[in-house]
Amino acid sequence: MDKIQQDLFITTILSNWELAVKRASKIFDGYSDEELLLPIAPGKNRVVYLLGHLTAVHDRMLPVLGLGERKYPQLDELFVSNPDNPATTLPPIAELRSQWTTGNALLTEKLSAWTPGEWLERHTAVSAEDFAKEPHRNKLNIVLNRTGHLSYHLGQLALLKK
Amino acid sequence: MDKIQQDLFITTILSNWELAVKRASKIFDGYSDEELLLPIAPGKNRVVYLLGHLTAVHDRMLPVLGLGERKYPQLDELFVSNPDNPATTLPPIAELRSQWTTGNALLTEKLSAWTPGEWLERHTAVSAEDFAKEPHRNKLNIVLNRTGHLSYHLGQLALLKK
Repeated sequence: MDKIQQDLFITTILSNWELAVKRASKIFDGYSDEELLLPIAPGKNRVVYLLGHLTAVHDRMLPVLGLGERKYPQLDELFVSNPDNPATTLPPIAELRSQWTTGNALLTEKLSAWTPGEWLERHTAVSAEDFAKEPHRNKLNIVLNRTGHLSYHLGQLALLKK
Repeated sequence: MDKIQQDLFITTILSNWELAVKRASKIFDGYSDEELLLPIAPGKNRVVYLLGHLTAVHDRMLPVLGLGERKYPQLDELFVSNPDNPATTLPPIAELRSQWTTGNALLTEKLSAWTPGEWLERHTAVSAEDFAKEPHRNKLNIVLNRTGHLSYHLGQLALLKK
């Protein structure tokens, strides 16, 4: 595989990630602050929960991928560690929207700067010992997995027709 | 990038596809034939529709990826061209289950045999002219896209708790 082919592998993987982020952004942008409080289906998560959840999960990618400290660790309590609860007080919606946008832009910028070798490096959620035995537990795997996680929730968001 | 690194890129991408297929199979296998007739949420697609839909979409990958003729083109009428309709007659459920399993096994076997260069080849849904301008519209892109499509519906299937 020559340099052009290596770059193509990475471009294709990145464009898939970016497309999924773009689709989600379009959905979130299409809802007013009040509409974000609608559940995706009766008795299921509200759209705003998925906005906060996805922002938190993407924020957690920073340390896992060795890209620095998290920006929004405070989101975990509401959007990762606990299920959606309409009785709890939410942070300002404008802040959540801004964190979604800023967080993804930062992440995508950092991923775009990786060399092919960096994509195959160990991520911090696997030990050096396990990684030696399972080298597919690399940074690429995290990006593919999180793109899949985003698609998973995109499918749920699609159930709520405006 | 050396040979080992090339292979790792591909192994990681393939294991992501296989994991998504495995998760879906586990869900479908966990439902009785009668339970497959349940909708994933009130008024939404039935589980059996998603089983047929995903089998058909994966079957369509064969010609798009230059891997041969489709095996189950008859599924399109019920599961791709039309929305779910509980009033229409379904094919035998056992047949749908078997096509899901056989189709994915065939596809995964063929993907596993590709060289790195083959992953970057043009797929048949893009013209040679467009591909020259947009080389990321390659076979890898189809596999990533369909893995995302599968994750999208996995998120919907997860809403129906047994």
